[in-house]
Amino acid sequence: MTTKEILEEQIKIQGELVRKLKAAKENKDRVQEEVAKLLELKSQINETGNQKFTLKTPKGTRDFSPHQMAVRSSVLNKIISVFKKHGAETIDTPVFELKEVLTGKYGEDSKLIYDLKDQGGEILSLRYDLTVPFARYLAMNKISNIKRYHIAKVYRRDNPSIARGRYREFYQCDFDIAGLYDPMIPDAECIRIVYEILNTLDLKPFVIKINHRSLLDGMLETCGVPADKFRSICSAIDKLDKSPWQDVKKEMIEEKDLTEEIADKIGQYVQLNGGRQLVDELLQNQNLIKSKSAVEGLESVKLLLDYCELFGTLDAVSFDLSLARGLDYYTGIIYEAVLMGKDTSDSDISVGSVAGGGRYDNLVGMFDSKNKNVPCVGVSIGVERIFAVLEGKLVASNKKIRTTEVEVFVATAQKNLVNERMKLCKELWDNNFKVEYSYKKSPKLLVQLQHCEEYDIPLAVILGESEIQRGVVKLREVSTRAEVEISRSELADEIRKRLQGIQLNGTS
Amino acid sequence: MTTKEILEEQIKIQGELVRKLKAAKENKDRVQEEVAKLLELKSQINETGNQKFTLKTPKGTRDFSPHQMAVRSSVLNKIISVFKKHGAETIDTPVFELKEVLTGKYGEDSKLIYDLKDQGGEILSLRYDLTVPFARYLAMNKISNIKRYHIAKVYRRDNPSIARGRYREFYQCDFDIAGLYDPMIPDAECIRIVYEILNTLDLKPFVIKINHRSLLDGMLETCGVPADKFRSICSAIDKLDKSPWQDVKKEMIEEKDLTEEIADKIGQYVQLNGGRQLVDELLQNQNLIKSKSAVEGLESVKLLLDYCELFGTLDAVSFDLSLARGLDYYTGIIYEAVLMGKDTSDSDISVGSVAGGGRYDNLVGMFDSKNKNVPCVGVSIGVERIFAVLEGKLVASNKKIRTTEVEVFVATAQKNLVNERMKLCKELWDNNFKVEYSYKKSPKLLVQLQHCEEYDIPLAVILGESEIQRGVVKLREVSTRAEVEISRSELADEIRKRLQGIQLNGTS
Repeated sequence: MTTKEILEEQIKIQGELVRKLKAAKENKDRVQEEVAKLLELKSQINETGNQKFTLKTPKGTRDFSPHQMAVRSSVLNKIISVFKKHGAETIDTPVFELKEVLTGKYGEDSKLIYDLKDQGGEILSLRYDLTVPFARYLAMNKISNIKRYHIAKVYRRDNPSIARGRYREFYQCDFDIAGLYDPMIPDAECIRIVYEILNTLDLKPFVIKINHRSLLDGMLETCGVPADKFRSICSAIDKLDKSPWQDVKKEMIEEKDLTEEIADKIGQYVQLNGGRQLVDELLQNQNLIKSKSAVEGLESVKLLLDYCELFGTLDAVSFDLSLARGLDYYTGIIYEAVLMGKDTSDSDISVGSVAGGGRYDNLVGMFDSKNKNVPCVGVSIGVERIFAVLEGKLVASNKKIRTTEVEVFVATAQKNLVNERMKLCKELWDNNFKVEYSYKKSPKLLVQLQHCEEYDIPLAVILGESEIQRGVVKLREVSTRAEVEISRSELADEIRKRLQGIQLNGTS
Repeated sequence: MTTKEILEEQIKIQGELVRKLKAAKENKDRVQEEVAKLLELKSQINETGNQKFTLKTPKGTRDFSPHQMAVRSSVLNKIISVFKKHGAETIDTPVFELKEVLTGKYGEDSKLIYDLKDQGGEILSLRYDLTVPFARYLAMNKISNIKRYHIAKVYRRDNPSIARGRYREFYQCDFDIAGLYDPMIPDAECIRIVYEILNTLDLKPFVIKINHRSLLDGMLETCGVPADKFRSICSAIDKLDKSPWQDVKKEMIEEKDLTEEIADKIGQYVQLNGGRQLVDELLQNQNLIKSKSAVEGLESVKLLLDYCELFGTLDAVSFDLSLARGLDYYTGIIYEAVLMGKDTSDSDISVGSVAGGGRYDNLVGMFDSKNKNVPCVGVSIGVERIFAVLEGKLVASNKKIRTTEVEVFVATAQKNLVNERMKLCKELWDNNFKVEYSYKKSPKLLVQLQHCEEYDIPLAVILGESEIQRGVVKLREVSTRAEVEISRSELADEIRKRLQGIQLNGTS
């Protein structure tokens, strides 16, 4: 028994004694004496416990097993290939930034930023998203146009709702187009990218909601909301994807001091969604078009919808006046993709938005000493939610995903052939095959073959004394367990041929 | 002029005035008055400076441009394919750990750990390497065997020597085999992996130095070094790759209190290196074989060299008694790969070790409440140094590396054809080509074609009114500038054919 186990046993015995004494209503001093002994034992175990503390990852973070990593790699590779299809380059930035780079960019959410300890030197914080570091990168390097993706982890000291797939450390997966271009052209491409990604990942049906900041502002203006309340009313509107209008209205009146009349006017707008017809109707709305800002927003939406038609994405796009998005830095079009229907959440994970973004034309200027702006538009793919949905689907479909790519396992049925197995592995590695063998000197054949089946390794080469003498090996197809004898000199070609066959039949 | 520029000008003038007054040995009060004004100006500029602070990444960190990322991806992909060739899975762990996970693992170097600020809740630190998180992962999940790689950034508050390719944030690239296996079998595979990686990356010539902790201990024991000095003497020996023996000897005598006699005995050993013959000679050394530990180490090295021969790596392996390696947790074989010769460092970057590792059988037990150990052996590839070497080579060879994978650029020679270009892009994206076009409504043809040449895009499709009417396009091979007219219906097939040709000819 370890010291800790002995102590645990003693605490148990002492605890029982104290309970018995109390139950028997023994003399107080006697009880206190035994309680003191119990506390002493407990403090001892805490000291031992400090050496062997609870093994865990920090709150809101987790490890990823080989199985989870295999799902993630396959999803990320598909997303990256869409980014590359649109000519994106990639960059990387440090995981931490000077704290002042992040200051004043996230409004209220700034309290969620992780700071590093001041150990002398600079004051640093972990990045909160990839957009602010991107803007800092553009300003610092005086880059006025680039199309880049960036996939990396970001950090938020939120109270994570693990069940909904939210963590304190999570991947962001961003694509942005920076540069002074003509209206809605890069914006339409961002929407096409979301459309391609969700299709490639088989996440249909989905809707890409779009709206425009100028339209939101114009709408609030014509409803009679004072300009200084635009932001806080937008953040109330933003809740409409989770709460019914009645609740949001109540918040507007009770917490944000709007009159019921104004709230009702807003209510008429934010319940609208549709396509080009809705844009045209709103462009006829005599109240709304009093606002220059609203007209500008509507014209932009109209143009974007035209481009969406050209790009073949219009069927998934919905112009939605309830879409507001939280972040302060958006200045133009905003969008958000939402998965629809039960079939995408066989597991209990409730999925909301899986992608979102918009135009932010003033962020880079915040970093430039001459306020020189670089207009930007981008989209962030909510990969953590997508991972959760796809992991759930995998479990539901009972499909296996391989965690290695091994093609050939070199096995033996006899003892003491490790040198021969090593020689054969070398030959096969030299031929560029992906090869494994047992690291035991004399492994059991059954264990070796079980390993092949567990890891879905397609082929096994089996060596024995007799085969070695005759210059041959047994080649086994793991799935059918069929074995043939092949001469050593033909082995590489035969393996190559069989692997091609297996790939073509898609059984791998 | 900005406020800041005005202030800078004023400070300059005021500074000159102060210098003149001092030079002229003016009345003290007068000087002090002007100095006060100067300080006031400087404090004002600091306040302005807070709004537009210096744009930089934190000390010892950097951004990676698309060009650097392209080099990195290509190197990492090659390394990953070697890991996969040996059947490795991959895992991921959080960027920070509970501080206590790291405590007591790095000896003196613990002072280099980045701590997070205590913002309430757990006390956290950024990971210092990937080995300790790996051991924590194994213990926490009670995993007794796995073969995994992990590529991720680690953090050390070192005083970075940027010129030598050392940073505070840098990639580690680790491969480890955990599990109770037969002696030297997984160890030999780690060496084979280093061998394959350095060959794949064309980094020949290189040497993989090997040694054994038990042999080091036994050697020091027979030289008469007291056991409590083993570690500090090892760390002196570890400097032999940078310092001559005379300096190391001096350190042993003056700083570590060895007698000259003992130091000389050590000196005789640590200047030895060779192959199997050296092992056999040492196994005849009557002094050395008095130590059980030394004999054990020598027998292990002998077995490993046999396995290296079977794996075809022996030509690059050198048994080297001066190899000590700093980290405390090694318990068995240790190794380190070093690039040789001038030709690998055309640039001024001096490269030392590019890979290193060894056996650490007791680290997992430090996390297990019952001290249950999982024997491990692994290797860490020094990718930052490798990146630096390969970037240098690229510059020297004048080779261009593409930062995007765009295959086709859709261009136009005429104004107002943006809708037509968008339609064609959609067609080509639907056919899974990687396609770009200009985001301007009416871009200049020259600018579009220059973009193709700058980014090495192989094909351009050029649209004009006349082509649109006739249902054709011009297809241009960017490198030769040859153009042909193709019907729209045959375009996808033609592009596919040409891209294959370009790939086969390796001009892409």
